[in-house]
Amino acid sequence: MRILVLNGPNLNLLGTREQTVYGSETMQDIETFLRQTAQTLNAEIVFKQSNSESALIDEIHASRDGFDGIIINPAAYTHTSIAIMDAIAGVGVPAVEVHLSNIHARESFRHTSYPARVCVGQICGFGKMSYELGLRALVHRLSK
Amino acid sequence: MRILVLNGPNLNLLGTREQTVYGSETMQDIETFLRQTAQTLNAEIVFKQSNSESALIDEIHASRDGFDGIIINPAAYTHTSIAIMDAIAGVGVPAVEVHLSNIHARESFRHTSYPARVCVGQICGFGKMSYELGLRALVHRLSK
Amino acid sequence: MRILVLNGPNLNLLGTREQTVYGSETMQDIETFLRQTAQTLNAEIVFKQSNSESALIDEIHASRDGFDGIIINPAAYTHTSIAIMDAIAGVGVPAVEVHLSNIHARESFRHTSYPARVCVGQICGFGKMSYELGLRALVHRLSK
Amino acid sequence: MRILVLNGPNLNLLGTREQTVYGSETMQDIETFLRQTAQTLNAEIVFKQSNSESALIDEIHASRDGFDGIIINPAAYTHTSIAIMDAIAGVGVPAVEVHLSNIHARESFRHTSYPARVCVGQICGFGKMSYELGLRALVHRLSK
Amino acid sequence: MRILVLNGPNLNLLGTREQTVYGSETMQDIETFLRQTAQTLNAEIVFKQSNSESALIDEIHASRDGFDGIIINPAAYTHTSIAIMDAIAGVGVPAVEVHLSNIHARESFRHTSYPARVCVGQICGFGKMSYELGLRALVHRLSK
Amino acid sequence: MRILVLNGPNLNLLGTREQTVYGSETMQDIETFLRQTAQTLNAEIVFKQSNSESALIDEIHASRDGFDGIIINPAAYTHTSIAIMDAIAGVGVPAVEVHLSNIHARESFRHTSYPARVCVGQICGFGKMSYELGLRALVHRLSK
Amino acid sequence: MRILVLNGPNLNLLGTREQTVYGSETMQDIETFLRQTAQTLNAEIVFKQSNSESALIDEIHASRDGFDGIIINPAAYTHTSIAIMDAIAGVGVPAVEVHLSNIHARESFRHTSYPARVCVGQICGFGKMSYELGLRALVHRLSK
Amino acid sequence: MRILVLNGPNLNLLGTREQTVYGSETMQDIETFLRQTAQTLNAEIVFKQSNSESALIDEIHASRDGFDGIIINPAAYTHTSIAIMDAIAGVGVPAVEVHLSNIHARESFRHTSYPARVCVGQICGFGKMSYELGLRALVHRLSK
Amino acid sequence: MRILVLNGPNLNLLGTREQTVYGSETMQDIETFLRQTAQTLNAEIVFKQSNSESALIDEIHASRDGFDGIIINPAAYTHTSIAIMDAIAGVGVPAVEVHLSNIHARESFRHTSYPARVCVGQICGFGKMSYELGLRALVHRLSK
Amino acid sequence: MRILVLNGPNLNLLGTREQTVYGSETMQDIETFLRQTAQTLNAEIVFKQSNSESALIDEIHASRDGFDGIIINPAAYTHTSIAIMDAIAGVGVPAVEVHLSNIHARESFRHTSYPARVCVGQICGFGKMSYELGLRALVHRLSK
Amino acid sequence: MRILVLNGPNLNLLGTREQTVYGSETMQDIETFLRQTAQTLNAEIVFKQSNSESALIDEIHASRDGFDGIIINPAAYTHTSIAIMDAIAGVGVPAVEVHLSNIHARESFRHTSYPARVCVGQICGFGKMSYELGLRALVHRLSK
Amino acid sequence: MRILVLNGPNLNLLGTREQTVYGSETMQDIETFLRQTAQTLNAEIVFKQSNSESALIDEIHASRDGFDGIIINPAAYTHTSIAIMDAIAGVGVPAVEVHLSNIHARESFRHTSYPARVCVGQICGFGKMSYELGLRALVHRLSK
Repeated sequence: MRILVLNGPNLNLLGTREQTVYGSETMQDIETFLRQTAQTLNAEIVFKQSNSESALIDEIHASRDGFDGIIINPAAYTHTSIAIMDAIAGVGVPAVEVHLSNIHARESFRHTSYPARVCVGQICGFGKMSYELGLRALVHRLSK
Repeated sequence: MRILVLNGPNLNLLGTREQTVYGSETMQDIETFLRQTAQTLNAEIVFKQSNSESALIDEIHASRDGFDGIIINPAAYTHTSIAIMDAIAGVGVPAVEVHLSNIHARESFRHTSYPARVCVGQICGFGKMSYELGLRALVHRLSK
Repeated sequence: MRILVLNGPNLNLLGTREQTVYGSETMQDIETFLRQTAQTLNAEIVFKQSNSESALIDEIHASRDGFDGIIINPAAYTHTSIAIMDAIAGVGVPAVEVHLSNIHARESFRHTSYPARVCVGQICGFGKMSYELGLRALVHRLSK
Repeated sequence: MRILVLNGPNLNLLGTREQTVYGSETMQDIETFLRQTAQTLNAEIVFKQSNSESALIDEIHASRDGFDGIIINPAAYTHTSIAIMDAIAGVGVPAVEVHLSNIHARESFRHTSYPARVCVGQICGFGKMSYELGLRALVHRLSK
Repeated sequence: MRILVLNGPNLNLLGTREQTVYGSETMQDIETFLRQTAQTLNAEIVFKQSNSESALIDEIHASRDGFDGIIINPAAYTHTSIAIMDAIAGVGVPAVEVHLSNIHARESFRHTSYPARVCVGQICGFGKMSYELGLRALVHRLSK
Repeated sequence: MRILVLNGPNLNLLGTREQTVYGSETMQDIETFLRQTAQTLNAEIVFKQSNSESALIDEIHASRDGFDGIIINPAAYTHTSIAIMDAIAGVGVPAVEVHLSNIHARESFRHTSYPARVCVGQICGFGKMSYELGLRALVHRLSK
Repeated sequence: MRILVLNGPNLNLLGTREQTVYGSETMQDIETFLRQTAQTLNAEIVFKQSNSESALIDEIHASRDGFDGIIINPAAYTHTSIAIMDAIAGVGVPAVEVHLSNIHARESFRHTSYPARVCVGQICGFGKMSYELGLRALVHRLSK
Repeated sequence: MRILVLNGPNLNLLGTREQTVYGSETMQDIETFLRQTAQTLNAEIVFKQSNSESALIDEIHASRDGFDGIIINPAAYTHTSIAIMDAIAGVGVPAVEVHLSNIHARESFRHTSYPARVCVGQICGFGKMSYELGLRALVHRLSK
Repeated sequence: MRILVLNGPNLNLLGTREQTVYGSETMQDIETFLRQTAQTLNAEIVFKQSNSESALIDEIHASRDGFDGIIINPAAYTHTSIAIMDAIAGVGVPAVEVHLSNIHARESFRHTSYPARVCVGQICGFGKMSYELGLRALVHRLSK
Repeated sequence: MRILVLNGPNLNLLGTREQTVYGSETMQDIETFLRQTAQTLNAEIVFKQSNSESALIDEIHASRDGFDGIIINPAAYTHTSIAIMDAIAGVGVPAVEVHLSNIHARESFRHTSYPARVCVGQICGFGKMSYELGLRALVHRLSK
Repeated sequence: MRILVLNGPNLNLLGTREQTVYGSETMQDIETFLRQTAQTLNAEIVFKQSNSESALIDEIHASRDGFDGIIINPAAYTHTSIAIMDAIAGVGVPAVEVHLSNIHARESFRHTSYPARVCVGQICGFGKMSYELGLRALVHRLSK
Repeated sequence: MRILVLNGPNLNLLGTREQTVYGSETMQDIETFLRQTAQTLNAEIVFKQSNSESALIDEIHASRDGFDGIIINPAAYTHTSIAIMDAIAGVGVPAVEVHLSNIHARESFRHTSYPARVCVGQICGFGKMSYELGLRALVHRLSK
């Protein structure tokens, strides 16, 4: 089972800035952490980050070849990108939306999500563990 | 580690009606399923359901004695109950909000949550697995 | 044919206060009046009133055993209770929403209804006759 | 007792199209059906349909001569016609608003009504029986 | 193939006033122009204009006898007429909405359309050519 | 100088109903009253009333032949008719909007006007004198 | 009969700037013009202008001594001053609101009025003639 | 003079949590404090708290027997309960709404109140003294 | 202890007009009444009224010299004056907002308050007693 | 005559997924189809697709060299991209907006368009024929 | 070159209160600072502050005699004063709006400005330097 | 001191199109102009432009190495890009937002800014001088 883990804009900054909001771990820490879970689930993950909306869309499109599912943290594009929503709906690859912080406890313009409308589900607020939980949920669903 | 699992209005109907939306499993199925995960995590769960907003509030208050955390599926009260939000904020027991269905893929009045504003995080869309994931996240956080 | 007639908050005050809005008849008067109609329709009615949202939900759930339909006047909960709406949708028992007063001629927050979204229909503005009409409509539908 | 039964735009199409929404009966069926009820109530009905907002207004105005009440299904004009509302208020003839379908279960722009603000009450969701119930309510009120 | 071309309120003024917005050609010019296109497409058109919402509805109803499709420019009724939308949906004759001017470049209350919700598509901004394009699209669709 | 005085829906009811809102005078009284003013201003008036939006539009169109200006009381269409606004803008005949009652002191949906956007000005709240004032204003403007 | 004519902020600039919007006449011109009408109506006017909301309120209060009515052009305060509305309602002196320009043809925040809610009526769009018409209306009303 | 003092959801938590928002005193402290004021005013108070909307409604209904007035702190139900508003309006017992915190200085969804619409008045922001002031106001009013 | 009592626009009219809304007492009556309470609380009050927003701001600024607290009834400025809010926040003198009438039972534009956001609390609905209660609350707070 | 045909995000997926919404043809099919029309019109088309908002903007900028017009299907960016609108306005090359599906018959957030505000016109709902119609309209306009 | 520097409500409090928001410098400090810049630019400034909306309007009007431009910090009136906007538009003297704090980083009701609509530009967020920058911009523009 | 000057979408078009809105100078002119100011301030600027939201984000991230501050003109992304706002907040490099045109005098969707919420301040309306002023403000702040 191969899973694409997509990370959106500014997540490359993780661990270097705004640690009170996003925690002290880097993207690399999250990737390492997630690989451990993946191994126990007999899944393989490919971990990518991009600040570009279109690069994320391209990755979603490409996921049809060789991936069984997508974990996506659209970051700021969560609240504005109809195009990422359309991409996920378009490829039909099961996707799970995850967020490090609790989007319901932040500014009101962060309370809603376009991509989540077409995802299997959404997980937010648990730091890097949001990724682990998302992976478990996705693998479980794909196994059915 | 003791965890209170609170279920809101109409969840007692699970498995008997509207299976296309909520799946075919009953509350009992979810409880049994969740106990297995709890065991592997060395946690004890107490599983309750009520259709009453105040009964839910009372349980949240009572959780201060003997519980380390709360898993709550407020169901329809998610979108209308400032009182349940205030109860969670008031007791200060860490809580995780879970939903069986993906609330972002349903009517727009189901896209927002009052209780989630004061919870650690929110998980939705994975059927009974939303509970398992919530339990993992909560136990992990309480362990830190 | 057995019909549950559910009355929501403050309807127990009928006939004692605010007669200019709600008329001079009591719940008891309405029940007596409705029994007459029921008899002519060969239907049996069980008449209940509660100020509690959860009690109303419990009654809706219980109606699956022994009732063919529901007449409901959700009163103030009409405009705020997603939970009662979910209960009616959940049990699948045909329901008709009735109101003594014309909700369209009152404050704007009384113009819309959550439960009516999942009911067969809605009748408002005819005093106790709203109940009689609701019963006729429901019995007619159940007879088909 | 003479009652004017007014039907708004597109209702002449009844029974020929969109039967899943409006049922299979024609205007003529409804009229025949309603005449039977009228007879049992010792009432006489005059049944009219028009696609024209002004024709409906003219009929409402004319109803002052010879009619004791109005049953009106304003159809699409329900949600846009302040003029029909003003006409009913202007003539002072008691009116009851009826709808074949449950307007609360359709698009949100169909949830509110201008004419209902000045009618005795509103009945929706029961197919042709909405008319029968409206007639009963109106005759009952006029008898007082 | 017979196509009804319906024109809404104030379009009879074309070519005489407000030429900066609507161009210098008259309804007659548009009709003549459109007949040429129709000929090349082996289609017959019947060209009508009315300032009356109900007359337009009547024409839509009548189109079921003898017409294969409708080209409609609802003009000002585009933004307010639920009744015309219901008429098109009711008859089930394929319709295409056209506008001489670009409605997206005018006042914000002209940016949305009720009838377009049930039409095949909408074309705006090309003067009389909007009609030609609409006719091509409609004939093409009817040929399939 | 010839002035068309156009009166919208329900104004034919004037003097017979709802006298607390609209006063006790009839359309005929207003016409007689206005003719006196017209005479002193050396103007000729043609006084018409229609409940039909399209009849009003037709009259506005026809006013280009033989009329120098328009006094219009669009009544309920004031708040909903983009088509009447477009008609006035289309013919380019100077128009003044008048209302018997003070629309700003009534329901909020009566506070705004489509036709007034393209009229010379608006006068409301003075009963039949609104017409006299409108006529004076119009004649004065046309004299310049 | 003594009438207070109150002019709000920036009206002292009349005739010197923005002549395309407000015309070329000064406050003094309007006063002179209005005195002529007043004379023919056997009314005396006192003409005042202030840029101060409170000065306008003070004048409205003072009008109870010696004035029979008020003509008020609240200018920019029309759209923001609940206090001027309260002042007019408080003193109970009949008031008429006038505007030089047609407020319905300008920015949307100029379409509504607080003071007009408690005035006899409103006149807008006729330049200085708005004042003359307001005076006629007011004197006529006071004569009854 | 007997006064019912009703406290809504989560107020039983007072003094144990969130002391920065609600202060360090418990419900018991407030009751003791209020009894002293009651004594000086020759009033008797009955002090109750419930997390249940319907229990609060029941108490309001019961207050007709033996109580002259109500002090109510609806807490979170302030902003969502039309039913409590209807209960107070229904029994006609004079009521005063009180809040410990200043609701205008908190989240925007706490700025408005349903029950206050039918109360004598509202007092907020003074901690337990809000109750004392409410009692004084109520007793004073009842004495008149 | 010296307290500034500030009264906003139109309050000088008290007792002379609109007695059904504001009662029959004058500003002078309220001042006399409040002095009695002040005496029993060993407080000195300075009582002022102004229709001017800026005069009220100036008084708030000046209160820093010689005043311990402010009682303010901003009247109509309650709902529109960010400047008065800023003034209170700027001087840091504790302030209590009072209203004679229950603002929650009036027009919706009177339900919210800018100044109350930075006051200790708000009291409304008790006529002159609102002032007495505000004074008690303020003196009590200043004593701590 | 050279025309740039620009296609926005996710259109590269055409024909492979969501065929119920977008039809079964691929981008390549549309290009081939459009070339035929282009040939009959003596026009040359350059056909491009990108998921990148900025790539689309760059293409619009570059179109000034060598292109006479633009056909653009902005897909999901239609509803969010002020930047694409600014690009089209900035280069001044005549553009026509096309959509395969009828945007008025989909989710409400797809009913409006930023780029259409500065285009010649918009065509939607006709599948690949929307492109043909757009090309005809554009070539016709450029020929004038 | 003579420049009027106008300061709105509460700015006289600068340096004495709320230093975390507005900094520690006084109006006098800002004036002294700005005179230095003025000298280097060969400009003369007249520095004024008022809490009165009308006084500010009067100064704007008076600026036509002897001033070449205006620097204005409308403070709280920025968000509510249509009258100050109209004054600036009315006199036609070029104006620049400045703010000490970054209004976009504060409450949402501070994000928009009426006066800025008719100013040359707006500068906010740089403390007293906002004034210097505004002066440079204004002098530069006037020199052209 | 090194400053990054970032320019958003369509700014590369400057000087070639829409000169009435944006002036006749090119990006190169602005860069040359700004270098002169930079020299007098002993600052070094790096000037970049991109139509790509992600390229702008990447530049903001990279600015942490070697830049002391950022001048950013986000152009159309000002109003839609939460991601650019997050990027600026994430890197913590002081930034100043500048605009050539006065955004408050254009379409209402251009009145607000996401990035400005996390910038030091915003300057708009002064053409290329907005950049000079922004640079002065930034250098001044960095010098402290």
